[in-house]
Amino acid sequence: MVKAGIIGSTGYAGQELVRLLLQHKDTEIVWYGSKSHINKKYCEVFQNMFQLVDAACMDDNMEELAKKADVIFTATPAGFCASLVNDEILSRVKIIDLSADFRIKDVNTYEEWYGIKHVSPAFIREAVYGLCEINRERVKKARLVANPGCYPTCTTLSVYPLLKEGLIDPGSVIVDAKSGTSGAGRSVKLGNLYCEVNENIKAYGVASHRHTPEIEEQLSYAAGKDVKINFTPHLVPMNRGILVTAYGNLTRTVTYEEVKAIYDKYYKNEYFVRVLEKGVCPETRWVEGSNFVDVNFVIDPRTNRIIIMGAMDNLVKGAAGQAVQNMNLMFGLEEASGLKLVPMFP
Amino acid sequence: MVKAGIIGSTGYAGQELVRLLLQHKDTEIVWYGSKSHINKKYCEVFQNMFQLVDAACMDDNMEELAKKADVIFTATPAGFCASLVNDEILSRVKIIDLSADFRIKDVNTYEEWYGIKHVSPAFIREAVYGLCEINRERVKKARLVANPGCYPTCTTLSVYPLLKEGLIDPGSVIVDAKSGTSGAGRSVKLGNLYCEVNENIKAYGVASHRHTPEIEEQLSYAAGKDVKINFTPHLVPMNRGILVTAYGNLTRTVTYEEVKAIYDKYYKNEYFVRVLEKGVCPETRWVEGSNFVDVNFVIDPRTNRIIIMGAMDNLVKGAAGQAVQNMNLMFGLEEASGLKLVPMFP
Amino acid sequence: MVKAGIIGSTGYAGQELVRLLLQHKDTEIVWYGSKSHINKKYCEVFQNMFQLVDAACMDDNMEELAKKADVIFTATPAGFCASLVNDEILSRVKIIDLSADFRIKDVNTYEEWYGIKHVSPAFIREAVYGLCEINRERVKKARLVANPGCYPTCTTLSVYPLLKEGLIDPGSVIVDAKSGTSGAGRSVKLGNLYCEVNENIKAYGVASHRHTPEIEEQLSYAAGKDVKINFTPHLVPMNRGILVTAYGNLTRTVTYEEVKAIYDKYYKNEYFVRVLEKGVCPETRWVEGSNFVDVNFVIDPRTNRIIIMGAMDNLVKGAAGQAVQNMNLMFGLEEASGLKLVPMFP
Amino acid sequence: MVKAGIIGSTGYAGQELVRLLLQHKDTEIVWYGSKSHINKKYCEVFQNMFQLVDAACMDDNMEELAKKADVIFTATPAGFCASLVNDEILSRVKIIDLSADFRIKDVNTYEEWYGIKHVSPAFIREAVYGLCEINRERVKKARLVANPGCYPTCTTLSVYPLLKEGLIDPGSVIVDAKSGTSGAGRSVKLGNLYCEVNENIKAYGVASHRHTPEIEEQLSYAAGKDVKINFTPHLVPMNRGILVTAYGNLTRTVTYEEVKAIYDKYYKNEYFVRVLEKGVCPETRWVEGSNFVDVNFVIDPRTNRIIIMGAMDNLVKGAAGQAVQNMNLMFGLEEASGLKLVPMFP
Repeated sequence: MVKAGIIGSTGYAGQELVRLLLQHKDTEIVWYGSKSHINKKYCEVFQNMFQLVDAACMDDNMEELAKKADVIFTATPAGFCASLVNDEILSRVKIIDLSADFRIKDVNTYEEWYGIKHVSPAFIREAVYGLCEINRERVKKARLVANPGCYPTCTTLSVYPLLKEGLIDPGSVIVDAKSGTSGAGRSVKLGNLYCEVNENIKAYGVASHRHTPEIEEQLSYAAGKDVKINFTPHLVPMNRGILVTAYGNLTRTVTYEEVKAIYDKYYKNEYFVRVLEKGVCPETRWVEGSNFVDVNFVIDPRTNRIIIMGAMDNLVKGAAGQAVQNMNLMFGLEEASGLKLVPMFP
Repeated sequence: MVKAGIIGSTGYAGQELVRLLLQHKDTEIVWYGSKSHINKKYCEVFQNMFQLVDAACMDDNMEELAKKADVIFTATPAGFCASLVNDEILSRVKIIDLSADFRIKDVNTYEEWYGIKHVSPAFIREAVYGLCEINRERVKKARLVANPGCYPTCTTLSVYPLLKEGLIDPGSVIVDAKSGTSGAGRSVKLGNLYCEVNENIKAYGVASHRHTPEIEEQLSYAAGKDVKINFTPHLVPMNRGILVTAYGNLTRTVTYEEVKAIYDKYYKNEYFVRVLEKGVCPETRWVEGSNFVDVNFVIDPRTNRIIIMGAMDNLVKGAAGQAVQNMNLMFGLEEASGLKLVPMFP
Repeated sequence: MVKAGIIGSTGYAGQELVRLLLQHKDTEIVWYGSKSHINKKYCEVFQNMFQLVDAACMDDNMEELAKKADVIFTATPAGFCASLVNDEILSRVKIIDLSADFRIKDVNTYEEWYGIKHVSPAFIREAVYGLCEINRERVKKARLVANPGCYPTCTTLSVYPLLKEGLIDPGSVIVDAKSGTSGAGRSVKLGNLYCEVNENIKAYGVASHRHTPEIEEQLSYAAGKDVKINFTPHLVPMNRGILVTAYGNLTRTVTYEEVKAIYDKYYKNEYFVRVLEKGVCPETRWVEGSNFVDVNFVIDPRTNRIIIMGAMDNLVKGAAGQAVQNMNLMFGLEEASGLKLVPMFP
Repeated sequence: MVKAGIIGSTGYAGQELVRLLLQHKDTEIVWYGSKSHINKKYCEVFQNMFQLVDAACMDDNMEELAKKADVIFTATPAGFCASLVNDEILSRVKIIDLSADFRIKDVNTYEEWYGIKHVSPAFIREAVYGLCEINRERVKKARLVANPGCYPTCTTLSVYPLLKEGLIDPGSVIVDAKSGTSGAGRSVKLGNLYCEVNENIKAYGVASHRHTPEIEEQLSYAAGKDVKINFTPHLVPMNRGILVTAYGNLTRTVTYEEVKAIYDKYYKNEYFVRVLEKGVCPETRWVEGSNFVDVNFVIDPRTNRIIIMGAMDNLVKGAAGQAVQNMNLMFGLEEASGLKLVPMFP
């Protein structure tokens, strides 16, 4: 039984972690951390947990937590995890950080895009970027995993194979992404109010969203050279789901079959990445509540571009589900354990 | 391993059955019935099932199905199940009918409200009304279970204890119910279009909805006398969920604690009925995707009435989940097997 | 040209007032009051007003405003208007108060339900309850109008005729109401976040909502005796709209035609109250953006009750539109001036 | 008084035309055409029109209509208008066609993308593409106006100035568009059901949407050379609104001020095109119900691209509103007459 502690358990990602871990046969949650609800019953914050969780929320005491848990999930704002991690802690407990603190290898890039000083840059090198489909073997041995961001997960898994195989010009990649509102978190801001989000669509963070350098770093690994992209996220009036529509210039004339073969090469044995049948566009409704990423593409011979689409649940594969997938790998459990949830529709 | 066949597997309730049975460790689906999609792959109708279900849709052949399955679920329009059931079939296979064909004991009432002739009234008497919390022992021995309607499930479980204990005047019961749009089924009608449902709320079937006599029959059992109610369903712009707000005149002055004790008497040991803490109103979001019914009440001393509220997921406890609960009882499995799904929020 | 000032112009009701007054040929807005956005351009708070409103937000200075305006609209929290009104002000300017400060004639009832002390009870008697269809002549002469609440407007107009004509038992009235989320205002609270409201329905303020005594007072006038009701509001995942479903015991056997004749007697000449054709249920989508209230009823001979339904736009007839209607009457303008907006669908 | 007839008045665009024309002081609707609802009262199809429209729906008799009307709006499927127009008709009445029949100058392109034969190609040359901001003078003299498509209107107005001024490489334009569901029309199809659209986002018509050649033709005029683009529309769970996010490679280094000056040059005097302040992204909620197109841009020096955004109401500026704007020009009325609607929020 893996004993899990969660710091930041009352955000949407934290609560999704609770949902997944409660249904995981090999885990037990020993710490529901929530600085803003200390001593309040967890099920009073989230009534869905009534009669399922009896525990009360705890303060953010990582020392204490490290004694009780085998793994700590930090679903916290940027800077928090970096401020607490140290060798002592890591010698006792594994950490899966859902924030961006350890995702970007170049500390200057992190500091520039996040606007804060990184207080434990020494651990950036050790941390493994927890995109299991790509870094599986390294995750298995990691003490500290940087759980990827939602947009980077969906984008990277969608675009990676084509860049890796040199099929698209790395300088031509444009990523137009759309996210449900849970991606904005449970913070109480005017822009997140029902009447402000409903019946509306907008772009935000245009040419400045923090996930840009994270995506660029991963795509650069694929391309074997420095990649700069345009990334434009949009806010969609729905709870869950991310759809990525990416565009790239083809480096040569290709057929559907050739491209399909490339995707199959990378994902045929990946349970959580589903390359759809020809002509079927990924839709967020078909992955809701699950850890799947649905991927597909269309070749446009008129413009010599390829349009790549990926859909996933931002709270599952884009956050809590991927964190559990990482945990499974780190503890030698079956990778899909607790994650074989059938997508819920409608 | 219980072998299950589904007739009507491409409606919303049928598809929800598939979702639940796929995640049930003791069942196997052997027949995906769908008259309108014969030979089409099931996962082409519901892309969430891609790589999870490989089977193609089958015709409605109950003879054939009875040979292959241990249990047949019929998620079909009124009249269909009644037209096929017979002793031969029932000697070979158990049937859980999600339609209304065997829910109402008085065949005249059925024929009047449903506007069709009942072609196998002989089986009405045998059929057990599958509201497990009330008819558990009889369900265990049943060959034919009439799976309750969505509104009747939520209403009956909410109101039953108070009528049974004589706390409310049976003649005073008013039920104002609100349902998500999946309750209208997957039929292609103008009134179900996105732009017709979204940003709207309306009552429908006022003083004429077919679930009225079903609710009245169950409440009459509780009251020990004939009960007539007002029942007004409303269509809410959301996918899933039913909220029942019921009103009754109190027969005597009561305290919160007295009423709470009554609910506890009936539901303390019921896993799927959660009587909430004082002051907490049931909300559909807290039960979504799960088999729970959340119940609570408010006493209004100003008018001497009690307001009773119940919330559940219409596709789970209101249809497919309750059907699986019945199956579990009929086959001697743990009643909650495959149904301990944590509600998904947001 | 009527010069209008708005205090509280950056809430949803205030902004709707701006929308309506900008399109009104006889008014000019001279003051966009907003304590929280002083000196900020109004169109930066509401981008829909870009290039339509050039003014900046002003502080809440009623003295100053009274010099500049012919009418002041206060779309402010309970207690605000009561704290500022005095004879000096009222001698210079007319006030239409969208809050509850002057709606309830019994100051004790107000103080009990609103939990605050009323600091200018002397003006309660003078204030006219601005439900134009009922108090038209008195509104025309008023200096101070208490603009009715959203639920009370919809409920009173729906139920009034039947109580007035003695057709329903005053002690039997139950009002089950459903509102869009703009009714909760633009305040930044957890419960108003998109992901908390979307895909959910809940009751709130059960047996304790502040609109209860306001409705009861108006219905008591109709019945000619003290009326106590049950009133249960619900929050619906949509922006605008209120639907009221009311229940009453009939005092005698009636036909559809008799009841229809009663409604026609009251509303035949009322432009803004539409009594629908037989069998058509009011729906909020058909009144969105307009000042209409759609009303209809169903007689249930089985229970000897009548079900009454009313639908309107909470921000128009339930707030800003009715305020403009009152202004029109107070200034001798055509009552429907600026309010003949065709409902916008979808 | 301009007498207007509408063929196809019971679709969403047709109904929006009715809403706008009813509120236009210089028009009168003399014909509510609807082949599928002949003799049914118009207000029974759209209850928002109850007591506002008394007329019944008429058959599609253009001969008869031409005698009664000064202008005919055809809000009909592809091929319909082309099948009826002739010199006789056009000598008596002006036609504004909301379908695509006369939008594309090259009949082969039309036939290829629409998959039907054009039966009156002779009139394609005469028809004026009714994008008023660009073709104003020609519209004024036209007998036959091809009202632009929704996506082409939003895209062209957003991108036109930069192509015209040679600021972006014509070969680099990628248009990622998002539309509310009313854009799919009121046709009763599975894909338009509430539960299929809600809580979902998907791309459709990838590299094959019919609006592609229409956009390309207009952008080619701007660029002065043949332009091929990628155009990917997405379906968003909301009723109204289109957001276009377009990407182009800059042909030279530019500052914000330079680009702003270009937009101002084209749109400073255009009432319906609002170039937003620096840093403000267009959002569909701010234009809902109005004829505005909100436009803005962000320069990304990292990739040397410009991101251009445009938002509008697909049923107003994208269909009925633009049709009225064209009518105003054709009949010498003030261009904005009946169209100065303040956007409705929320």
